[in-house]
Amino acid sequence: MTAYTATVTVRLKHGVLDPEAETTQRALERLGFELADLRSADRFEIDLEADSTGDAEDRVDEMAERLLANPTIHDYDVEIAER
Amino acid sequence: MTAYTATVTVRLKHGVLDPEAETTQRALERLGFELADLRSADRFEIDLEADSTGDAEDRVDEMAERLLANPTIHDYDVEIAER
Repeated sequence: MTAYTATVTVRLKHGVLDPEAETTQRALERLGFELADLRSADRFEIDLEADSTGDAEDRVDEMAERLLANPTIHDYDVEIAER
Repeated sequence: MTAYTATVTVRLKHGVLDPEAETTQRALERLGFELADLRSADRFEIDLEADSTGDAEDRVDEMAERLLANPTIHDYDVEIAER
């Protein structure tokens, strides 16, 4: 078994309203910053043991599909690195 | 001016309690997943125009310090990519 860290980034799908991001963008603009767009995402870093990178990726994909992301509104991607 | 996308990752400092991450980890374990640790972070993707990568990085660093991160409890890092 090898120790891996998986990084899961969960984003809202294009077209889904993101009031948190809009509020943050407006607050930055009120502070005088110029920006064209701001998107927010959740990131999970998961330490796990697995037989291979592929095995780790399969398990973390399943975690994302069953709990971390809501497929109706979210896209996600998974990166795996050896720890 | 060049178009850049900055990615800001805001993490809780080591030692700061993260009840959201603990709850997520426990929920995954209840679903039968084995994992050693789970950490959560916020990620902001910011589109902006700047004269250079260094200029973009300076401005986004300032955004993080003034609004996106709370220096008492958060660490953050900034990555800049041309759009």
